[in-house]
Amino acid sequence: MTYNANVAEIIATLRASGDLDSLLSETLSIDLVESILTEAARFAAEQIAPLNAIADRNGPRLTDGVVTTSPGWPALYADWRTSGWNALSAPEAWGGQQLPGVVQAACREIWNAASMSFGIGPTLTEGAIEALIHHAPDELKQTYLPRLVSGEWMGTMNLTEPQSGSDLSGIRSRAEPAEDGTYRVFGQKIFITYGEHDLAENIVHLVLARLPDAPEGTRGISLFLVPKFLVNPDGTLGERNDLVCAGLEHKLGLHGSPTCTMQFGETNGAIGYLIGEENRGLNCMFTMMNNTRLAVGIQGVGIAERAYQQARTFAGERRQGRADPAVRQSSLILAHPDVQRMLMTMKAMTAAARGICYKAAAAIDRSEHAGDEAGRRRALAVASLLTPIAKAFSTDTGVDVASLGIQVHGGMGYIEETGAAQHYRDARIAPIYEGTNGIQAIDLVTRKIGQEDGAVVEVLIAGMEDVLAATPSGDNTEILAEAVATLRATTRHLLDGLANGRRDDVLASATPYLRLFALTLGGIELLKATHLADDETKARWRLLSRFFDTTLASTVPSLGLSILKGTAMTPAEAAIALG
Amino acid sequence: MTYNANVAEIIATLRASGDLDSLLSETLSIDLVESILTEAARFAAEQIAPLNAIADRNGPRLTDGVVTTSPGWPALYADWRTSGWNALSAPEAWGGQQLPGVVQAACREIWNAASMSFGIGPTLTEGAIEALIHHAPDELKQTYLPRLVSGEWMGTMNLTEPQSGSDLSGIRSRAEPAEDGTYRVFGQKIFITYGEHDLAENIVHLVLARLPDAPEGTRGISLFLVPKFLVNPDGTLGERNDLVCAGLEHKLGLHGSPTCTMQFGETNGAIGYLIGEENRGLNCMFTMMNNTRLAVGIQGVGIAERAYQQARTFAGERRQGRADPAVRQSSLILAHPDVQRMLMTMKAMTAAARGICYKAAAAIDRSEHAGDEAGRRRALAVASLLTPIAKAFSTDTGVDVASLGIQVHGGMGYIEETGAAQHYRDARIAPIYEGTNGIQAIDLVTRKIGQEDGAVVEVLIAGMEDVLAATPSGDNTEILAEAVATLRATTRHLLDGLANGRRDDVLASATPYLRLFALTLGGIELLKATHLADDETKARWRLLSRFFDTTLASTVPSLGLSILKGTAMTPAEAAIALG
Repeated sequence: MTYNANVAEIIATLRASGDLDSLLSETLSIDLVESILTEAARFAAEQIAPLNAIADRNGPRLTDGVVTTSPGWPALYADWRTSGWNALSAPEAWGGQQLPGVVQAACREIWNAASMSFGIGPTLTEGAIEALIHHAPDELKQTYLPRLVSGEWMGTMNLTEPQSGSDLSGIRSRAEPAEDGTYRVFGQKIFITYGEHDLAENIVHLVLARLPDAPEGTRGISLFLVPKFLVNPDGTLGERNDLVCAGLEHKLGLHGSPTCTMQFGETNGAIGYLIGEENRGLNCMFTMMNNTRLAVGIQGVGIAERAYQQARTFAGERRQGRADPAVRQSSLILAHPDVQRMLMTMKAMTAAARGICYKAAAAIDRSEHAGDEAGRRRALAVASLLTPIAKAFSTDTGVDVASLGIQVHGGMGYIEETGAAQHYRDARIAPIYEGTNGIQAIDLVTRKIGQEDGAVVEVLIAGMEDVLAATPSGDNTEILAEAVATLRATTRHLLDGLANGRRDDVLASATPYLRLFALTLGGIELLKATHLADDETKARWRLLSRFFDTTLASTVPSLGLSILKGTAMTPAEAAIALG
Repeated sequence: MTYNANVAEIIATLRASGDLDSLLSETLSIDLVESILTEAARFAAEQIAPLNAIADRNGPRLTDGVVTTSPGWPALYADWRTSGWNALSAPEAWGGQQLPGVVQAACREIWNAASMSFGIGPTLTEGAIEALIHHAPDELKQTYLPRLVSGEWMGTMNLTEPQSGSDLSGIRSRAEPAEDGTYRVFGQKIFITYGEHDLAENIVHLVLARLPDAPEGTRGISLFLVPKFLVNPDGTLGERNDLVCAGLEHKLGLHGSPTCTMQFGETNGAIGYLIGEENRGLNCMFTMMNNTRLAVGIQGVGIAERAYQQARTFAGERRQGRADPAVRQSSLILAHPDVQRMLMTMKAMTAAARGICYKAAAAIDRSEHAGDEAGRRRALAVASLLTPIAKAFSTDTGVDVASLGIQVHGGMGYIEETGAAQHYRDARIAPIYEGTNGIQAIDLVTRKIGQEDGAVVEVLIAGMEDVLAATPSGDNTEILAEAVATLRATTRHLLDGLANGRRDDVLASATPYLRLFALTLGGIELLKATHLADDETKARWRLLSRFFDTTLASTVPSLGLSILKGTAMTPAEAAIALG
């Protein structure tokens, strides 16, 4: 079972939700975007997708600290990066193509749909590029950025330690200043994606660690660049640094992606270079947080699209039962209303998640490239509000859609050979990493909706009302209007709760609120796509939009009720209930 | 991570939803039930649960047609059956203990929570016992029943063929009459659970096949008993029959359970014995359908309970973040409102599913043992209506709760060693086998709610209203009252739809209707448990009931909206939307 990116649908969403038209210029025509995506789709279908199941069954192996990736992966990665696909949106100054983030987001969806295990690697490289661009001293930039942008070297993020995951304040890895201005890094990091592998000549680790006498908690953490191989002044690779992959995790899915335990400084200390200011390491991470979290949301969209395509293909080949009792021959299961319901749910959720992700990507684009400082600041606030929604909703969607994908297959779905089960296993990591979806929801309610005293979220809500006002009657506007009203009421309720010291009640409502927000926004984005669609595709968008509203956006009022009625349990109640 | 059955909660649910009190007698005291369940819990915790993860990693192996089960399983099964746990509700006449089905259901939950892969085996034996009791000629009963009831021999169901799964009308396996009154069976069956193994001396296959010149479709299928070893007149085992396990499936989960491709009659034909009448094989299957489908629903409850316990334990050990900003030390994640929300969701859904399953089990009990024929007939109609709800809702709950269980663990949840991932993989089969949940929903709306012109479902709805009427105000009765009203309205809507030839619209609403029914009924069952609880546990039941109503039963009106507004797509629309 292969994967063929639906380029037309992606472009329609880029236009409806990703503000693509506003980015078009003499150097970026819609034809160019289409040809980029078509070429990405071809590469994904021909070269990445066929290796996805093979990598699932033959994950990376660790021997004496050396990780050998799955069969065919080094060649695949080499082809991919030499074809110019790495770091598409990196600045031209560092060898990048400086494409808009929304186009990059669309490509990222395609790589991840073809293989999540493959797609996650370059995403980490891009995170490293972004951190270096914003925070590294010039000399480090000159040494590392060109090779990271070309993909010759790859990057990693070393945050988690056994006692310190969602809460990074507990990090114990330490860094000692050396006389030459470098540092010696010591400590163990776990769950390090692509921490060690054979795809690139060098691996550039970004590592969070504490300096001696650093303050406790999150304000005492610094960020260091720690390369696998030291780099000589002429740019050639020098000695092996004092770091090693001490183990690979045996995971539920994402088997093609090596998840490493990294040991830094087992002998003399790993040589590291400070990125940004001392004790300000988490701030450096925040710079790229929207991008990396959105990238994981896009993984959710990618795996959902992949699972949909596989289920749709199966439903169009498998015959079982008679949908029309008047016909003697058995029907394609695609003709059964309950199978259609499952497929429509899969497609509608995927399309809504895509719209939300592209909308967030466009805001990130504007936060970097808008013409004036105020515009960039407002766009950053919008991006910061949309990112946790995009991350959590899209990754939940990835899991839900992959699970429905198994269900469409019936018994065949439970057999690994079919491939549907891999998507279900792969998808399950995305609600967890890069900040669990619970953390996303808490971020949304405690930090994001309160930005500028609620003015940022108000702009978004007013924008939704504008879309509804511009909608011809008959397009289920009453369901979405009620959803938007519920969003407004619950937003106010949560802001009041924060202002009045009912923080635990707000936290208890965080997850349903995020979902409510996403279902409302998703419905609006599908409506926008319907408006914008040409005659050929309008009927399809309208069916999708109506299905989404009737079955998914319609649940918003009940989510609202649970928020308006919901209170956190007291400690005494929690002790009784969860004993 | 082990499993300790919550016997007190199970007994409370047996009383509130399983009509246990009405079954008590001189020979069945509440103390006896408690001691049976306590002993089952001990066996499950000490002997079954520890082998669950081992079997996951070391599934059965097939060599030359012989299946060797996981390490320790033959001894485990031998201990289990010689301890008297097999076929608890089988008649005393055949060596059983004739315990009520609800007590058997509670034990079944415990076995499946300890290990779904283990629990499913004896469930199939019980299905075979039931089929033989109702349909086998006396001689076959004498030969097979005592050994099946004791568990010395185990049973299987051979229904599915590659082209024939949800729709059994396409079965091609054939049976030819021999001169001695036996039959020769030929054909391939797939997905045969425990089709071959080393737990029992003999395996009694029940096989659906067609006689020569049988009518096409489901009215031309007969049921045959085809033993692995023929049985001599003195009851000793004779020759090996002409059947073989030709392959084992590599599945997403349930690795401890051998899923076999069975080949019957590769040389002279497998010797088989007709069960029931010729061409009436599916009717024999229908006899045991409620029981086997409910058993799968119970698997959903079991795996949900197991996942909950594991997540609850982890949340009580793992520290991360500070729930109370005034305290410097990091908190147990159990103290965070969003983690509490996840755990409460898991617990409330599990408890509601348990209540629904036990209610269905009680109805099946009454359908067999009620004092008068009319009572048995009405109970059978109620059981037939509740069974698809119990099966589908509980198995969906198993998947949803297991997925939340992973989420509570954060990154550790994605590591196989933790064990949370196994539950997520194991749980995923239950919405598929024994009739997919889509088939359950279709059965509910097309056959079950229309029983006796809607009088049966009306009795259930009126019963819910009675519970609400007896509820003190303040217990969220307004949410449940609206849910029951929605259930009534949508039931009427679907019955009207069927009467008016809008069959496809009804089919398109089947799944949301089943869920709506289950959420309403689940809320009522939790309310009943709250009413019945003693002073010590009432506060806990009330918190659980309120949480369920506020967050889950509150979604019923929106599901109702999607049913009242929902229509099936026309073939033209489906072609546009799903291209």
